[in-house]
Formats: sequence, C-alpha cells, structure tokens
Amino acid sequence: MNIILFDRNELSPDGTIARFDDRRANHIRQVLRPSVGDELSVGVTNGRIGTGKVTQFDEKAVTLEVRLDRDPPAPLPLTVVLALPRPKVMRRVLHGLTVMGAKRVVLLNSARVEKSYWQTPFLGAEELNRLLLLGLEQAGDTMLPEILLRRKFRPFVEDELPALSERTLKLVAHPAAAGECPRGAGRPVTLAIGPEGGFVPFEIGLFEAAGFEPVRLAERILNVETAVPASVGRLF
Amino acid sequence: MNIILFDRNELSPDGTIARFDDRRANHIRQVLRPSVGDELSVGVTNGRIGTGKVTQFDEKAVTLEVRLDRDPPAPLPLTVVLALPRPKVMRRVLHGLTVMGAKRVVLLNSARVEKSYWQTPFLGAEELNRLLLLGLEQAGDTMLPEILLRRKFRPFVEDELPALSERTLKLVAHPAAAGECPRGAGRPVTLAIGPEGGFVPFEIGLFEAAGFEPVRLAERILNVETAVPASVGRLF
Repeated sequence: MNIILFDRNELSPDGTIARFDDRRANHIRQVLRPSVGDELSVGVTNGRIGTGKVTQFDEKAVTLEVRLDRDPPAPLPLTVVLALPRPKVMRRVLHGLTVMGAKRVVLLNSARVEKSYWQTPFLGAEELNRLLLLGLEQAGDTMLPEILLRRKFRPFVEDELPALSERTLKLVAHPAAAGECPRGAGRPVTLAIGPEGGFVPFEIGLFEAAGFEPVRLAERILNVETAVPASVGRLF
Repeated sequence: MNIILFDRNELSPDGTIARFDDRRANHIRQVLRPSVGDELSVGVTNGRIGTGKVTQFDEKAVTLEVRLDRDPPAPLPLTVVLALPRPKVMRRVLHGLTVMGAKRVVLLNSARVEKSYWQTPFLGAEELNRLLLLGLEQAGDTMLPEILLRRKFRPFVEDELPALSERTLKLVAHPAAAGECPRGAGRPVTLAIGPEGGFVPFEIGLFEAAGFEPVRLAERILNVETAVPASVGRLF
C-alpha cells in the first residue's frame, strides 16, 4: 500500500480530516508505523493525491489531516482488449495493468476462451473494484480503470471497437505476424491480446478489418501474464 | 506446452526416436490431439529444436520420429539480480523470465527480504528445474536458465557481481532515481531489482560502487511481478 485511498464522502465536510478503523488503519499501524505528526501519501479515489498528517492513532482508528495538492500520475494512453483469461490469470493481469496505469481494459470473448471463465465471481463489480483498488494502492494512483465485459466477439470488434480505438495506434498481438511490436509508441495505443493459443485466423481477420496491425511481441511464445506487462514496457 | 522437451538420454541410441508415457504423452493426446504422421515441435533440453513426427500413439505412450535441425531462440543477453521475493511471487517471476529468454538469474538477499523466504522448498534444485522446464515449454526454448542463490548481499555485490556484470549495461531499479530506464538497450544488460519497498540506501550505494546506475522503471511504483517483465519489454 503505497498510498492510502479513501472516498470523497469519507472526508470531513470541510475536506480536511479522514478517519479510518479498517484495513487501512491496520496497514498504517502495522506496516507504516508512523509517529504523530508524520505525513503519509493519501488520495481520493478518482481524485487528487497529497499528504495526510497523522494527528491521532490508537488500537482502533487513525486520524489524518489531509491536504490534496497534486494530480495523480498521468494515465497511460492505452486501451487493452484482452481475450478473457482464466480467472486467476485475469486477476493478476488486471492488477498489473492497473499498477502500470492503464485506464481501460476490455475483457472479450474469443473462440479459444473457455465459456466457464465467464462464470467466475471475480468478474462481479465489487470484486473487480476491490482488485483495482489494490492496484492503485500499489501504484500510488487514484484513477480507477474502466473494465468493459464483452461476451460477443464480432459485434464488439465490428461495431464498438472502431470508435473505441479511433486515433490510436491499433495493434493485435499475433505470434505468426511478420511485423514486430513497435517500441516507444509515442501516441495512444489500443492493444489486443489473445488467449493462450492466440486469436483464431477469423478473429485476426476481423481485427485487421478494423484497422489493427498484427505484431509479434517476442521471438518466443509468451504467456498472457508475461505478454501484457512486457508489451506495455515496450510501448511506453 | 508449445514444445515437447526431452533429455538427450531419452532418445534412441541413433538419436531419431523418442517415446513418452508421462505428462508429455498426456499433453500430446489430450491437448494437441495429433494424427499419426503429424509433426510436433520438439527439443532436447539444453540442445537443439526441431520436429517430432508422430509414428504411433495409444492410451499409454507416444512415439515420435525426431529431427533436430535448428538452434533454439537466441538467449536474451540479460542477467537479472533479484532480491528474493516471497515464494509464490518468486516462482511467477522466474517462470516469466524463463519464458522471455533470460539465461541467468541471481536470487539475492537484501535488508528488506524476509529471512523465512529462504526456507521455501521451491528453491530446491529439483523444484526449480521443474519450474524452469515449464517456462521453456511455454516459450518454445530448450536452454535452461542458471539460477544462483546468494544469501549474503555484500560479498556478492562486492566480490562476485563485478565479474558477472563485466561489459554489460549495469542498472539497478530504484523508484527514487533521477534517470529513467533506457529503451532498447542494444547490448547485454545486468538489471538489479529490489524487494517490495526497494533496496535500502546502503545497498544502492554498494551497487553504485560496483558501477550500477540507479534508474526509475516507471512513474508509478511497480510490484516486482510487474516490474520484471515490464523492464525486460522496455530493454529488449
């Protein structure tokens, strides 16, 4: 937890005092172990960041005097379109993307996605929110990514993706592609990454029709968990 | 499993026939589902890669006619010096580094490494070997990375690291560094990555004395699992 996050409505009416008695208080007491007067990194979910001066703490609660004087880190100009991985991998990949600053992720069905993956409770709004908050707390960021669930491949790629990816560099990861993934894109990117085994040729064809260029991420065949952060590192 | 790996001594004396009745046979039968005559990607651990033509398979075993006609992918010219993460994270990071083609990883003690991490059975030679093989099978590679365990920080950094990192670009990840991690290094790299919370200043000082430049990997604070593949993606 590199930043203590709270909602706007957890602040006192004048916006200067925050008081916690939950896992954030435990973290402050047990890991950060501040003295009264110490300043901690704080932020308002989907808002600004700043410092919280510890004015009081005991076994139950921590009280901070809050000053929100800075904007959070700039968002990564990246939309990831990801064939839904199995739930454990999905959680790690979404956490990693949040840590790196991606602000929009589309979880998409695809021929090689197992239908059962869509049944996981981890795709519930509350579960996702909890996961993304952990990512923001790691990163020192406040802006929650938007997660879109799209269970129909073709309508998404044909009807919704063109507007979503407008004026971005459009790339679809494809191990058999001739071209390599560019380095340091220098502009907004929409990056589509397939399931283990890749998108099927029909799907690659639809991405190409939507203006996406197939690119190889590496000489080796990367698993999704490795491919996502490696390609973000390469592009930004 | 994007390549079927076997040891040299599993081949027939003339080096042309391989026969399996273990998890590789199961994978071939249940996932790849070839017909007799189909060719699969195969490789000899620490040796060449090529094709295995299915000549026979039944409920128990699979027999391949093997032709090893190519070298495995070129190694990534990278040594990673990694403060030992907690065991689950360590396994995922080592797997990812193997998938990306790193061939030498030093697991190092550091002030912020919990001593108990060194007790994990996952650091045993057999457990490590099993994990690295899974990475090679994902990547389509044959060359096992070398894993060095170094439980004394200072003797390693002062006495061993200079020779290990000779004629490489020497970088140590440090969130507070002024300089950014370079892109596309274009030469061999030795990259040191600290524990959650980072190397302590004394440790950064010893790395600097060994010629390492502190660099920031990103504007945000990355967890180790994200930092490692993201920085490899950026450097290579």
